[in-house]
Amino acid sequence: MEHLKISEAQRVIFESVNVLGTERVSLEQSLGRVLAQDMMANRDLPPYDVSAMDGFAVRSCDLATAPATLEIIEDIRAGDMPTKTLQAGQCSRIMTGAAMPRGADAVVRVEDTQEVSTDTVRIGTTVKSGTDVREKGENMRCGDVVLTKGTEITPGVIGVLATIKAVNMLVYRRPRVAILSTGNELEALHAPLDTDKIPDSNTYALLAQVQALGIEPVLLGIAPDDPAELEAYLRLGLDYDVLLVSGGTSVGVHDYVRPAIEKLGVSMKFWRVAMKPGHPLAFGVLGRITSGHARVPLLNPLPPAGEGANESLRDLHANAGAAPDSFVFGLPGNPVSSMVCFEEFVIPALRRMMGHARLYRRTLSARLAHPVKFRPGRTEFVRVQLTCDDIGYLATSTGTQSSGVLLSMARADGLLVIPSDSMGLLQGEQVTVQLLDGTSFQEYTGFKE
Amino acid sequence: MEHLKISEAQRVIFESVNVLGTERVSLEQSLGRVLAQDMMANRDLPPYDVSAMDGFAVRSCDLATAPATLEIIEDIRAGDMPTKTLQAGQCSRIMTGAAMPRGADAVVRVEDTQEVSTDTVRIGTTVKSGTDVREKGENMRCGDVVLTKGTEITPGVIGVLATIKAVNMLVYRRPRVAILSTGNELEALHAPLDTDKIPDSNTYALLAQVQALGIEPVLLGIAPDDPAELEAYLRLGLDYDVLLVSGGTSVGVHDYVRPAIEKLGVSMKFWRVAMKPGHPLAFGVLGRITSGHARVPLLNPLPPAGEGANESLRDLHANAGAAPDSFVFGLPGNPVSSMVCFEEFVIPALRRMMGHARLYRRTLSARLAHPVKFRPGRTEFVRVQLTCDDIGYLATSTGTQSSGVLLSMARADGLLVIPSDSMGLLQGEQVTVQLLDGTSFQEYTGFKE
Repeated sequence: MEHLKISEAQRVIFESVNVLGTERVSLEQSLGRVLAQDMMANRDLPPYDVSAMDGFAVRSCDLATAPATLEIIEDIRAGDMPTKTLQAGQCSRIMTGAAMPRGADAVVRVEDTQEVSTDTVRIGTTVKSGTDVREKGENMRCGDVVLTKGTEITPGVIGVLATIKAVNMLVYRRPRVAILSTGNELEALHAPLDTDKIPDSNTYALLAQVQALGIEPVLLGIAPDDPAELEAYLRLGLDYDVLLVSGGTSVGVHDYVRPAIEKLGVSMKFWRVAMKPGHPLAFGVLGRITSGHARVPLLNPLPPAGEGANESLRDLHANAGAAPDSFVFGLPGNPVSSMVCFEEFVIPALRRMMGHARLYRRTLSARLAHPVKFRPGRTEFVRVQLTCDDIGYLATSTGTQSSGVLLSMARADGLLVIPSDSMGLLQGEQVTVQLLDGTSFQEYTGFKE
Repeated sequence: MEHLKISEAQRVIFESVNVLGTERVSLEQSLGRVLAQDMMANRDLPPYDVSAMDGFAVRSCDLATAPATLEIIEDIRAGDMPTKTLQAGQCSRIMTGAAMPRGADAVVRVEDTQEVSTDTVRIGTTVKSGTDVREKGENMRCGDVVLTKGTEITPGVIGVLATIKAVNMLVYRRPRVAILSTGNELEALHAPLDTDKIPDSNTYALLAQVQALGIEPVLLGIAPDDPAELEAYLRLGLDYDVLLVSGGTSVGVHDYVRPAIEKLGVSMKFWRVAMKPGHPLAFGVLGRITSGHARVPLLNPLPPAGEGANESLRDLHANAGAAPDSFVFGLPGNPVSSMVCFEEFVIPALRRMMGHARLYRRTLSARLAHPVKFRPGRTEFVRVQLTCDDIGYLATSTGTQSSGVLLSMARADGLLVIPSDSMGLLQGEQVTVQLLDGTSFQEYTGFKE
């Protein structure tokens, strides 16, 4: 079998994985989830015409020949209902967000007025009808769809959900994920230290990578290099939506874990990807529905960037919950390779299952701080740190790129992608960096005020 | 009192807020926390010289006059200990990660060999001593400090922590945060719908903003516009490390909430910031230690970007836990303003308390999709959506920038910062955008392979 390109492998995964079913969550528990229903406004907002400023509610016709002196007939605060109707020559003192009194059609800001006495004010300017009035229903009208199915629930979205009093809402459920390490050489976290063994770091790095997506995975532990025992562990793991198996390096993922997985009915889609670190990587599907339930093919397998993205998202959501398959990722035993494969392949799969439209890591452009040697062949991911200077981001390698050195990953802010046909990168060259977890914040860089 | 610049207000907050005390968490619960201790390796890794490849462990001197045919005396898998010592003309079959046998000093990759029989192999190439051997202790040596105090715990860091078998570790504790809304016009989420009232969205938008930082805040509800009741609510809130009060717009945060807070002993540091949306914003400190416990001033109030950042971080951590004060943020009642103030001021404060070195939102450079009109005066934050094209990021306003329209925030990926002295921005102009939550991922943009 040929080595797949990364994008080809991503496409195979994208075409295999569907959005999961739905569940109801409370507003307080909804952050980061994806709406599985349209949400409608249940009231007009503002509920009535309100003032956009602190000042005076007036009849604009009274100010046609400004300056004018008006009688103040009422004080209206937010939450109060005005009780009086303005007649010619009258106005009401009004606070931001307070309801406009009957008869008024504009607001004059307090700074444009001069109080002559407690019940008269002198206004020097004319105003157009509607000035500084926010009309009833301007923000949302009762019955309007204010948020659509497929929307990721961010803090801003939660504010809108609270505004329409959505105490709970339908969202796509999270995949249930199991994590398994394999290999006789591995020592469990809680086992006594044996210097002849290798500590199992993959279980915990994968745990954290899954947690960072908002999913709490189940840890299955370490399967020994014994076909019967491995099979028993894999059988457990295939009860989950997604099983992540790392390792088997002692005999190679291909030769050992793969036959055991296939024996359990998993159809392997690929097991070689042309990337470094990362190879070998296997992906398989265990179809739960075996007859009379053809999968609906997606019209747009990879969502186009920008304009068309919503179209594609709609197709994707049409299939939600249709195919409750299990998916197996056979990840390399090498700690860095396992993490990089998770970034490129498992993240888009898990996020798609959760109904997200944005499946791939955010990228940014950076200048390379130093040259990088490269032998053309496989697309390579270089772990880099990012710093800011006056020009923009600067990317610096975190040191040795040996796939055994997990510290290089621990120090990294991102992965620099070197194309397979590159002849090497120059110092100062503009490169694309995929951001890793822990990079949502940065040092103080300030901005011009 | 003058309106403070945003950077001045940020400096006041930075100088007032210290890193909190420490607590111990399990590895499984440590993601996103900050290490409050150095972490040392408790073993050498690799624990012995290991093969970096699948192939044959050889004596390089035997291949000085390659090609040569060698006798295979043993099969060594990862986790096995070799039992035989190579003599002249001998080799052992070895897997990646397996221990090198005695006598061997190099590995020949399997693709450079030809097995003549089950116990003889023909090797066509010479190898230098050390080739494809990873030396004992190459990744880490027992006793080395592999992670330093102040390190944010990312998935890569968790992998390293598992490698050194850190079952639990000391981290900085999270601030306890309380959220309070104020205003007679507000209607609670669970209250029956009254079309004359305004739904309280700030409580939940702030809840989600705090949750996104890994903190589970306490909701105090809605305080009515009554001085005695407000005082009772504020008193409750001041038992927390941080109290977020939003609203009081009916009479203005300055006039109403501020005196009530000051009455409770809170020293107000500022209450006006020159920004839009966002004004008014108040910040106060309730000192818990009133005598004989002078605060240690920080040497570098604002951490410099880049090089010096670690120095400053060290000072910062020297003061950890020194000042268990309470902090009050008086946020605007306007939903968008409240969220923007949280972004600019509350996030850096909360992250600093948790020991983070990176306090500020990540920014990126984008092209403006359309011109933006601007009247010089206050620094303005424009809510924008980001899309990718071949050149880079494109920023598009989410529509009306009225601070009452929370939908503009719900649709936003970031905040574009317009300097106070700008005369407006041109279409195609390169601008800086602060990313918001929910932007760690993007649509498929691909990369050259």
